[in-house]
Amino acid sequence: MATIFSKIITGEIPCHKIAEDDKHIAFLDINPLVIGHTLVVPKREVDYYFDLEDEELAALNAFAKRVAKAVFREIPCLRIGTAVIGLEVPHVHMHLVPLNQTSDIDFTKKKLNPSQASLKATAEKIRNVLV
Amino acid sequence: MATIFSKIITGEIPCHKIAEDDKHIAFLDINPLVIGHTLVVPKREVDYYFDLEDEELAALNAFAKRVAKAVFREIPCLRIGTAVIGLEVPHVHMHLVPLNQTSDIDFTKKKLNPSQASLKATAEKIRNVLV
Repeated sequence: MATIFSKIITGEIPCHKIAEDDKHIAFLDINPLVIGHTLVVPKREVDYYFDLEDEELAALNAFAKRVAKAVFREIPCLRIGTAVIGLEVPHVHMHLVPLNQTSDIDFTKKKLNPSQASLKATAEKIRNVLV
Repeated sequence: MATIFSKIITGEIPCHKIAEDDKHIAFLDINPLVIGHTLVVPKREVDYYFDLEDEELAALNAFAKRVAKAVFREIPCLRIGTAVIGLEVPHVHMHLVPLNQTSDIDFTKKKLNPSQASLKATAEKIRNVLV
């Protein structure tokens, strides 16, 4: 069965897209830890990060770097943290989280629930500074 | 000034080493979130993950994969999670955290304080299954 991320990749489920290439997509987490929290996903549906081939890890991280630099330009923070957990959706996704303190990347805390309009505006701001 | 990780790399500060190659080192976190929590560090002293060159990100992740597979063989868990936060030591370090639930990778919780003997035994077990 296609994962929710595969449905986002095909366009069956909408997303607030930040960037896309032939092998990856990045979009805003709709229940972010902090504003600007972005998911980076390889289009190939693999469950576990360390089951990706070395070349796939390389490409995913190069793509994530480009996205992280754009997020950092727009969202006030000290740096972009990353995490790959993967206990819920069985499709690799790297979290990019704008950090001002360590607790910003605590996945056990209550998530935010921004409006669609707010997510749309955030995505647009970040896309505008993507290079 | 050399970071604590650079001092570990030169051997000035001891560590419970898991693996090393010419560009990377992996060793146990002495205050782990869970038993088996390992740090993967590039020898080049760079502060921020996304300031690494694409080739460095690729090599770091390929090395981390090899280490993660060994940790997974020895530490009972569902998978190995990763995180790069970097608000404390200004030298890139990827956390590899054996996960049974999301809270295992909550960096705001109280860290463990295993004995040196326990860390030594854990490192040895993991090194023995490194391929």
